Amino acid sequence: MQAELLVEVTRGGAVESVHYGHVAVVNAAGELVDGRGAPGLPAYPRSAAKMIQALPLVRSGAAAARHLGSEQLALSCASHNGAAIHTRPVTRWLAALDLAEQDLRCGPQMPDDRPAREGLIRADESPCQFHNNCSGKHAGFLTLNKHLGGGPEYHEVDHPVQRAALAAWEEICDEATAGYGIDGCSAPNFRSSVTAVARAMAKFAAAPDGSAEAQLRDAMMAHPELVAGEGRACTELMRAAKGKAAVKTGAEGYFTAILPEQGLGIALKVADGTTRAAECAMAALLVKYGVLDRDDPAVRKRAWTTELNRRKIEVGEIRPAF
Amino acid sequence: MQAELLVEVTRGGAVESVHYGHVAVVNAAGELVDGRGAPGLPAYPRSAAKMIQALPLVRSGAAAARHLGSEQLALSCASHNGAAIHTRPVTRWLAALDLAEQDLRCGPQMPDDRPAREGLIRADESPCQFHNNCSGKHAGFLTLNKHLGGGPEYHEVDHPVQRAALAAWEEICDEATAGYGIDGCSAPNFRSSVTAVARAMAKFAAAPDGSAEAQLRDAMMAHPELVAGEGRACTELMRAAKGKAAVKTGAEGYFTAILPEQGLGIALKVADGTTRAAECAMAALLVKYGVLDRDDPAVRKRAWTTELNRRKIEVGEIRPAF
Repeated sequence: MQAELLVEVTRGGAVESVHYGHVAVVNAAGELVDGRGAPGLPAYPRSAAKMIQALPLVRSGAAAARHLGSEQLALSCASHNGAAIHTRPVTRWLAALDLAEQDLRCGPQMPDDRPAREGLIRADESPCQFHNNCSGKHAGFLTLNKHLGGGPEYHEVDHPVQRAALAAWEEICDEATAGYGIDGCSAPNFRSSVTAVARAMAKFAAAPDGSAEAQLRDAMMAHPELVAGEGRACTELMRAAKGKAAVKTGAEGYFTAILPEQGLGIALKVADGTTRAAECAMAALLVKYGVLDRDDPAVRKRAWTTELNRRKIEVGEIRPAF
Repeated sequence: MQAELLVEVTRGGAVESVHYGHVAVVNAAGELVDGRGAPGLPAYPRSAAKMIQALPLVRSGAAAARHLGSEQLALSCASHNGAAIHTRPVTRWLAALDLAEQDLRCGPQMPDDRPAREGLIRADESPCQFHNNCSGKHAGFLTLNKHLGGGPEYHEVDHPVQRAALAAWEEICDEATAGYGIDGCSAPNFRSSVTAVARAMAKFAAAPDGSAEAQLRDAMMAHPELVAGEGRACTELMRAAKGKAAVKTGAEGYFTAILPEQGLGIALKVADGTTRAAECAMAALLVKYGVLDRDDPAVRKRAWTTELNRRKIEVGEIRPAF
């Protein structure tokens, strides 16, 4: 196994569980300045690459033609909680395109946001596609699709929308993709080395004002609550970083970060796909690279974290192992 | 890393995530017949050892003195869903001991059972300690405590109830424990090698009729729905095994099995603590050792499993790697 120990979970003073993975930190010159595990191996970045998938929306001029604001750009990069602050603007966005819920291809999902979820349960209602954590990304796809004049199955890999996503992906990663898989939201997700994704994040970090990369990066940092939701890692870490980092989680233990001041890009993949480990490792890396304080509550909730049980008794710790 | 590859998760034909771990299969003679990873290293079996923690309840005569039936013995070994079929009998059990919810020390927990959980949400009520997945184990502790005449803090490691649990644990594992941690339910959980826990499970498998081990094992197999709940691995795998296996999940990727016909005990720990991997590996081992058919729906839900996304599109597979 070429992965490297990233995170330990302890109980009663002993290590109970371990998480291995791969990390790449790349600078603005495209150089790998910190590699752990085997970052040269391909992996699916999943939702941690949403800012890459949103590039054609901006570059094509579709976003400008539709007068999308930074809120919509942030939502196009989001894995949101399905809270009202997410579903309402996406609903309005589609209406402005003369589209509706049935034009989405992401599928329905029970929202993670507690008021939204419990509201559905109390009303005995089912979630719809607007609640899907990817509905903002798909609204972005539909906006691009209106611009390109493609057919309704915009999620299919040979559709112009996804061909544009792939072209942007390979260009900014500077690497041919190693195939694709179908994501939870039915869009293709491409396989690239962790190093290549970190290289893409470094380009987002160093991108000049006004570029598509800078617009998307700055929209994420301006609206941390739209990118994820209350209590979530992306929202809390971006709020704490105060404009020094745009970060994005992905399924199966992926996490990316864009550090504009340092001109650094970070990508990491936890080999076992565990979110707690990806969040712990990313929080620790943001501390290491100087954008967050180790004692910040957003960090301590995820790294060097005292774990409490159901009676609030201290049982162990989650800590970075590097 | 001494752990061995146990489970692979694929997407788009490529391996996306991997799970390593440790496995021990021990026969009735106490011999390790199949070892993977480093099963000699200590780990916390967590709730996968509840049948061991319940031994003093039966051996002391406390269960017989209180006329506990097989339902209560099954609940004493359970990590249940907090459904009405679990919380009602535990409530009645405590009432028969002249005890009430506040005598429990497991803490409240939102039930996993959907009707119970949504019922609480609709009624705007909070969960109580009866909903805690360990409330049956704690009812067993309280029953033993009445018998022993101990103080109310029965969950403390130096309390007679936990001293009895430790003595039974070290005796049946035939190994000194390597310290303890505090479990989610506030009871101590002891650290033993995976091989020693498998040895204990083999003793449960080979135990003569009427013994405490056989009573607990047979109670689990007689009431699969009480040990976990609808849709859960323990319940579905035991139903499918039709008396050929008692199985028990534990937090952080632990799983145990008792195979009476074969006289085998199985214990496994997934190094990263992931439930999906523990369930996949255990389902595959139950197939390997002849108690379940590979095509049984209870198996195929967890091993050699086609993964579907939110629009029911096939995206990948979870499969054993051994």
